[in-house]
Amino acid sequence: GKADAAETGLVPQWLTFLAEADQLKSIYRASRLIDDSRFENSAEHSWHIMLYAMVLADQAGQDVQIDRVLRMLLIHDIVEIDAGDAPIHGQVDHAAMAAKEEAAAERLFGLLPQNQYQDLHRLWHEFEGAETPDAQFAKSVDRVQTPIANLENGGGSWVEYNVTLEQIDQRVGVPVKRGAPDLWAWLRPQLLAHFDKLQTA
Amino acid sequence: GKADAAETGLVPQWLTFLAEADQLKSIYRASRLIDDSRFENSAEHSWHIMLYAMVLADQAGQDVQIDRVLRMLLIHDIVEIDAGDAPIHGQVDHAAMAAKEEAAAERLFGLLPQNQYQDLHRLWHEFEGAETPDAQFAKSVDRVQTPIANLENGGGSWVEYNVTLEQIDQRVGVPVKRGAPDLWAWLRPQLLAHFDKLQTA
Ligand SMILES: [Ca+2]
Repeated sequence: GKADAAETGLVPQWLTFLAEADQLKSIYRASRLIDDSRFENSAEHSWHIMLYAMVLADQAGQDVQIDRVLRMLLIHDIVEIDAGDAPIHGQVDHAAMAAKEEAAAERLFGLLPQNQYQDLHRLWHEFEGAETPDAQFAKSVDRVQTPIANLENGGGSWVEYNVTLEQIDQRVGVPVKRGAPDLWAWLRPQLLAHFDKLQTA
Repeated sequence: GKADAAETGLVPQWLTFLAEADQLKSIYRASRLIDDSRFENSAEHSWHIMLYAMVLADQAGQDVQIDRVLRMLLIHDIVEIDAGDAPIHGQVDHAAMAAKEEAAAERLFGLLPQNQYQDLHRLWHEFEGAETPDAQFAKSVDRVQTPIANLENGGGSWVEYNVTLEQIDQRVGVPVKRGAPDLWAWLRPQLLAHFDKLQTA
């Protein structure tokens, strides 16, 4: 019918966006794979934290809609294609980074038809704002994945960035306590044990 | 409360599964990134086709639940950690591969608590079976991503595997026509043009 034809007319526009998104596979993060073989890229990271969100769903508050969280995590790093990855423990000019990411969101989501641009732009802003229960749980899983990998591989990016437990309490603990408090209650003693061992070593 | 404590007791089990899943980032496919820089791994592939499913949702039948499709695609390749990736145009003993993948699903999803094992094992079987509308749409996006990338990068894995248009009609066309018929109607002429150009070259 007419609607189908009109929709199929959008295929090239959809595919332009999807091809552009392929570049997220070439944005490398400060964190490494658990087997320490190489740096992790933001596309596979996004996949992994979606799996975290689905598997750890019981750790989310009752008002969290996991399927909305999954969609949020699916698109949360796409802005890095233009803006790059800002390592959580690196030195960053936050205002300049926010402006770069906003421009990236407008260009990249702007490749899509207007209604989809609006939906995804709004969803990304909700994630960044970290004020809704969905966004707070999404932020939690985004923040815990690297510490958990670092615990598995002897410190990982903490070593390179000279990260202290106090910094982790601030940059990981604060958001994770908000979005997944029981998970933080479990993780904090593991972190303490790791950093204690470093000091006595 | 008691329930929370019991749930937090599952954290090590969840994290064992999530750490094991990290290995999907080291399973390389026959297909390459669009910029041709390297082979694609199955974790970033899974991320990308979830983005396909969300963006191309209008191409799905009305009885398709995109959020179920996303969950299906999130876990669809995890069995490759044990069973490896079977290139769609390679020579494969399908019965042997199915047995390997079944064992992989039991071991890997079996790392999770029983209720989650059952949910994910069933969801993976539904994907593999390709009989429900959700699974058929999921299969469609899984199958179109590589041809679309190959069209962008001059043939990609078709060249290495000596793939013909007839083979694509069979292995890509049949499932995509079933799950996303308008998308196939759009894609088929592009494929024809690509292979025609090869013959006259
Ligand atoms: Ca696949």
